[in-house]
Amino acid sequence: MKLSEAIDQQRGDLLAASCPSREVLKHLTSRWGVLVLMVLRNGPHRFSAIRRQIGGVSERMLAQTLQWLEADSMVLRRDFRTVPPHVEYSLTPLGQQAATHVTALADWIEESLPRIVQGWPDAPADPPAGDQDHGAAPPVA
Amino acid sequence: MKLSEAIDQQRGDLLAASCPSREVLKHLTSRWGVLVLMVLRNGPHRFSAIRRQIGGVSERMLAQTLQWLEADSMVLRRDFRTVPPHVEYSLTPLGQQAATHVTALADWIEESLPRIVQGWPDAPADPPAGDQDHGAAPPVA
Repeated sequence: MKLSEAIDQQRGDLLAASCPSREVLKHLTSRWGVLVLMVLRNGPHRFSAIRRQIGGVSERMLAQTLQWLEADSMVLRRDFRTVPPHVEYSLTPLGQQAATHVTALADWIEESLPRIVQGWPDAPADPPAGDQDHGAAPPVA
Repeated sequence: MKLSEAIDQQRGDLLAASCPSREVLKHLTSRWGVLVLMVLRNGPHRFSAIRRQIGGVSERMLAQTLQWLEADSMVLRRDFRTVPPHVEYSLTPLGQQAATHVTALADWIEESLPRIVQGWPDAPADPPAGDQDHGAAPPVA
């Protein structure tokens, strides 16, 4: 589905290779898109504050992710035009909705993690109980 | 957060760079992971049937995605051990839960697409109405 067709039909079709919704899905579920949306749910943040909260993100990747989300009308970039510069990022109403969905997924992953990793080669064979000694499961890189 | 710590604490922390939940998020939100979960919601499928429904996925990438989801206990691979071979993929109860979340996100993207793409360079300036002529918006590759 082409962009013009998607707009005419007023909705996208993610299973169609040429539908622009694929591009949006890519942005929202990018390695960092989910985490940026989660951090901005707590209100406007400066670039450096977002970066501090997300472990491991590079300056370049965070800038790219914010640009994607801004182009998709999810994130608003506000430049206060002061010296020294003060720029803040916040969620648009559309971004709030997106954040609600990705946060639900993220919460579920965090809660379900012990069940998910049970099949991983390094995980202990039994589900954990609070007072058990699990031995030394090798750390994951 | 290390794998053993995450299991001890019975939940992950996506904002921590070393938490294994990051890896799970990567699998679930991979370019194809979302679409595979959506297709398998409609019941068990053979490899070729999944591939037919998802436009643009290569054999290699679909195989990789199914392996990830299988390792994360989301997808069950059942080999009927017949000649010619018959292998089916289905969602586990954990995979059903994951699919519910990613489908909610996907549905929202498809519904919101006209609002999202308004800021894109090739999109028409006004929100579309059913009977309007939008001119020729250039196709998206």
